Amino acid sequence: MTMHKVLFLPHNQEITVRDGETLVRAAMEAGVHINASCGGEGVCGKCRVIIEHGNVEEGVTEKLSKDDLEKGYRLACKSVIRGDVTVRVPVESEVDASVLNMQRTARRTAKIVQPDFEELKEQGLFIPPVEKKYLELPEPNAQDNLPDTTRLVSFLKLNHDERRLVVSLPVIRRLPDILRKDNFKVTATLGRPVHKGRKSHIINIEPGDTTDRNFAIAVDIGTTTIYGQLTNLKTGEVLAESADFNAQISYGEDVITRIMYAEKPEGLEKMHEVVTGTINKIIKKIIRKARVERDEVSYVTIAGNTTMTQLFLKVNPRYIRRSPYVPAATIYPPLSAVSLGLELGDHAGVLLYPQISSYVGGDIVAGVMGSGMYRNEELTLFMDIGTNAEIVVGNKDWLACAACSAGPAFEGGGIEFGMRAAKGAIEDFSINPLTLEPMNITIGSVRPRGICGSGLIIMVATMFEMGILDSQGKFDRDSDTPRIRKSEEGIWEYVVAWQEDTQIDRDIVLTEVDIENLIRAKGAIYSGCQTLLDEVGMDIGMVERIILAGGFGSYVDLEKAMTIGLLPETDPDRITFIGNSSLMGARMSALSNHIRLEVTEVTKKMTNFELSETRSFMDHYVAALFLPHTDMKKFPRLKERLEQRMK
Amino acid sequence: MTMHKVLFLPHNQEITVRDGETLVRAAMEAGVHINASCGGEGVCGKCRVIIEHGNVEEGVTEKLSKDDLEKGYRLACKSVIRGDVTVRVPVESEVDASVLNMQRTARRTAKIVQPDFEELKEQGLFIPPVEKKYLELPEPNAQDNLPDTTRLVSFLKLNHDERRLVVSLPVIRRLPDILRKDNFKVTATLGRPVHKGRKSHIINIEPGDTTDRNFAIAVDIGTTTIYGQLTNLKTGEVLAESADFNAQISYGEDVITRIMYAEKPEGLEKMHEVVTGTINKIIKKIIRKARVERDEVSYVTIAGNTTMTQLFLKVNPRYIRRSPYVPAATIYPPLSAVSLGLELGDHAGVLLYPQISSYVGGDIVAGVMGSGMYRNEELTLFMDIGTNAEIVVGNKDWLACAACSAGPAFEGGGIEFGMRAAKGAIEDFSINPLTLEPMNITIGSVRPRGICGSGLIIMVATMFEMGILDSQGKFDRDSDTPRIRKSEEGIWEYVVAWQEDTQIDRDIVLTEVDIENLIRAKGAIYSGCQTLLDEVGMDIGMVERIILAGGFGSYVDLEKAMTIGLLPETDPDRITFIGNSSLMGARMSALSNHIRLEVTEVTKKMTNFELSETRSFMDHYVAALFLPHTDMKKFPRLKERLEQRMK
Repeated sequence: MTMHKVLFLPHNQEITVRDGETLVRAAMEAGVHINASCGGEGVCGKCRVIIEHGNVEEGVTEKLSKDDLEKGYRLACKSVIRGDVTVRVPVESEVDASVLNMQRTARRTAKIVQPDFEELKEQGLFIPPVEKKYLELPEPNAQDNLPDTTRLVSFLKLNHDERRLVVSLPVIRRLPDILRKDNFKVTATLGRPVHKGRKSHIINIEPGDTTDRNFAIAVDIGTTTIYGQLTNLKTGEVLAESADFNAQISYGEDVITRIMYAEKPEGLEKMHEVVTGTINKIIKKIIRKARVERDEVSYVTIAGNTTMTQLFLKVNPRYIRRSPYVPAATIYPPLSAVSLGLELGDHAGVLLYPQISSYVGGDIVAGVMGSGMYRNEELTLFMDIGTNAEIVVGNKDWLACAACSAGPAFEGGGIEFGMRAAKGAIEDFSINPLTLEPMNITIGSVRPRGICGSGLIIMVATMFEMGILDSQGKFDRDSDTPRIRKSEEGIWEYVVAWQEDTQIDRDIVLTEVDIENLIRAKGAIYSGCQTLLDEVGMDIGMVERIILAGGFGSYVDLEKAMTIGLLPETDPDRITFIGNSSLMGARMSALSNHIRLEVTEVTKKMTNFELSETRSFMDHYVAALFLPHTDMKKFPRLKERLEQRMK
Repeated sequence: MTMHKVLFLPHNQEITVRDGETLVRAAMEAGVHINASCGGEGVCGKCRVIIEHGNVEEGVTEKLSKDDLEKGYRLACKSVIRGDVTVRVPVESEVDASVLNMQRTARRTAKIVQPDFEELKEQGLFIPPVEKKYLELPEPNAQDNLPDTTRLVSFLKLNHDERRLVVSLPVIRRLPDILRKDNFKVTATLGRPVHKGRKSHIINIEPGDTTDRNFAIAVDIGTTTIYGQLTNLKTGEVLAESADFNAQISYGEDVITRIMYAEKPEGLEKMHEVVTGTINKIIKKIIRKARVERDEVSYVTIAGNTTMTQLFLKVNPRYIRRSPYVPAATIYPPLSAVSLGLELGDHAGVLLYPQISSYVGGDIVAGVMGSGMYRNEELTLFMDIGTNAEIVVGNKDWLACAACSAGPAFEGGGIEFGMRAAKGAIEDFSINPLTLEPMNITIGSVRPRGICGSGLIIMVATMFEMGILDSQGKFDRDSDTPRIRKSEEGIWEYVVAWQEDTQIDRDIVLTEVDIENLIRAKGAIYSGCQTLLDEVGMDIGMVERIILAGGFGSYVDLEKAMTIGLLPETDPDRITFIGNSSLMGARMSALSNHIRLEVTEVTKKMTNFELSETRSFMDHYVAALFLPHTDMKKFPRLKERLEQRMK
């Protein structure tokens, strides 16, 4: 990858960026503010900069006169970096430059840390729950006319030291013809028990030697997106991956609306059918990609939250949304893929990741497994922030978990101009402390349509650190800028982008109501963590490691999340992102019976707390309804920065 | 039951019979010969007798003149006994009378001996594989919101000392609503493992207390007839029973033609569908009879021969009819009734009786179980003579079994005028030793249509003892009777009934070819027993007990069967009939897990011999192709009788 140096003047800030990056994004990354309202589409014309050395591609629009161009002016948002370049950002004075320069710390997201599969192998824990064995059976004759099934079972007992074998009816049905297809040379597929010494099931029989062709599929049923991954059970290798929107979305955005739909007549059947349809689509795609036949897939592991799991299994989730929030089950017996409507061979089994409670599902258990937190001494905080938030705290000795009624603020829900992290969403933001003019960076570098969760956190954190917002989330009423105003409804707001700079033909604003919602959301999560730790006699300050999961975790600016009090203040190096923990957990279970056994143990160990029923929760929650918190002692670094600013 | 005494003169033979019996049947039972050709329909007019004391009902036909009637003549076959009566059979001379009188021993069939279910109870072995438990669960609340399944399982663990419980998906699906129907008062149905300490399955859940309503169905899939029996699992009581022809009959009479049909495209599916149809019909009938709901049936046990079992399970029996005669399996895993097309609740399980080999099926294992021979010291011979014959010899220490290629002679197959034991079949027979005129008794007392298996044995045995047939099965060519003749094809035959006395407008004859077939059939069975005993270093003379099974076993005249050499000569008191052993075995398994466990052990213990592959079989077989056998030392009583006759 070709890299280029960009020097910003007068800040004298240098940064190395990838070839093809835009100047405005480079500036954002360097912590250099450039007014930029239209998200990078080149419409507002505010991001004028002067190229002093080197050259950029494009950056020339009708917003710049011939004269401007000759002077070296370019629009930063449209300038593509193709070589080292020195760029001057026009400022009123040198003072301005230094003030601007101290405003931003570079965006910092969590490092991805995933479990090492090779390690599993080295530890001898690569024991797939489904194994193929090639067998050359003696052919029957007049003196030896054992039943076909007995011949198979006896041979496995005698020559492969197998014990307690059960042969399924479909295998018995196929066995006679398949044995005689290739002179009693066959490959038997054995389903292994999780607990040693229990029954093994002969689930499939094929003519000849097919031991090289044994595959598993891991599926993560997300409320929004479903992921599938095809794994080679012989090597452990991932062969193909695919994702698609959960087709249930057409029936409701979140779990609650889905549950409500499932309560209608035929609603449950519909929900099941629709999610199965999406999974089948994904299966079709990944097996085609990897040139695997349907019948070569022996095993499917599925993780999802409790509602998604129940809907997939056609188990009515009616009582999940009603106090006292009781799921039908948290552990499911092994099932057959065909019986669940999956388009796979009749031998393929399905394992559902166990749940903990109505709102702490298999995706979270999977995350705990993938993070390895259940094996470590360190006090770890695991957070999955999505449509809602689930948290787990603990270590190898104990685990406590809870769902936080945070609401969907971090996915843009309940925010006036909130939106999912899609094209046109403002995902990064800075503000000119002197003029209070914004710098908006959107996904796809187009005119903004709204604000996504990670952008929202950056906005609020930035304004708070700058003093435009107070700790109660109220705007500075005395600011001398048209961007802070009172709406016709009497609500104070900050205009992030003027109508003409947006795609939606309206001013995009951030209101105090939005901020209140954000504070409530982050407060629920933070106080949830505190309550869990309280229950075991610990304090949030003792957390040694934070693991983020869920899509949101990969984008969140860690420093900003600490600034608003979403994450406890800690060394960002101690915060890692685990990726799609649900999918990963599903894959691990498909590869290792040892992990399956550990899953069972971890599930038993995880204590669920209903926060609303926990004595101290309300106190913690009320205390967390500030930026970052009433108790500033918990945020010493931020406190220092704020005091610095006051001087 | 009112009984009457009948005295036959001049034989001076008295017999006590049931009110309503006919004179001709009474005579047969008394061993008194009366010429009777038309089977009891009153057509031939040959069975004229004189009523000397007392009275009979009817017996008056156009065959008798007014004068005859006045003299007291009646037709014996139409005379119904309603009181004590003295009857004179017209004979040529007193000598005739005494000769006639010595010809017959009374017909003797095997006494029915069935296992006593009360005994099972007393021994504490009444442990049905499916048990219902009524539970009053604590209702969930904010402090206790365990998942529904966990609530159920934990309660059973804590309060009912249950261990290792598995909950099926259909139960999980129903559980939430059913728990809330009657304030968490429910009845759980538990499927018990055969081996203690293994998993119990919660297979059903119902609101309220339904422990009184727990039923099982035992099914015997016969090649010809299917029987079903509904049992109360709480009391062990049989509530209803029904039988119907196996609808597969339309596709072939015997297992071989059924197998051939199943090999055609869609043939297997058809065979499965058709037999399932019959079973469903029977189920419908018996549950209606007993006022039981479909969903109250928790368990079905099914016994049948190997082919019937494979066809029902849709397991192609192709290799059963091809050397080396390999069945697909002999042991089947527990299955679900619904998955096999049975119209029962989705929780109902199905247990298939294990088989031994291609031609020794679950019906035979069931018979061994029901007879208790696997528990006794005595050397026992178990015989099931049906479309084919299966034999088991052994005792509590060992069991050997084999199928004999006897063919269907005992069911009328391969006999020119052979027929099943249905209306119009000659089922009993005697012969006038002077005139060689027959006395035919038919099922239903109608004009004969043919000869059934038990009739055939009586005919051949009677003629042999009388010297009309020699030990090679050839008629006495010098007999002075039109009834023994040479057919146009040059085959010697005995005319059992003249054309005008039959329903079929042809003479009904017994040919030497028929007799040859019968000899081959009985020879195969007898030599099969001998061979099995040979293999374990024993002799047929050592057999202490004979147990007969199958429909044929209830009708066979024991003495006559010994005379032709079908059964080894023994005290008839040592021969018992076990009834429909298959159905009985199925019922026992439905009632006792202890029996199920024993079935597994017995199955392992039973050694199957392929007679055709056994060294000594051919020698034994050739020696048995005589009446009764080449070795008359094996039949001392018969030998004595024959010698008596010679004098």
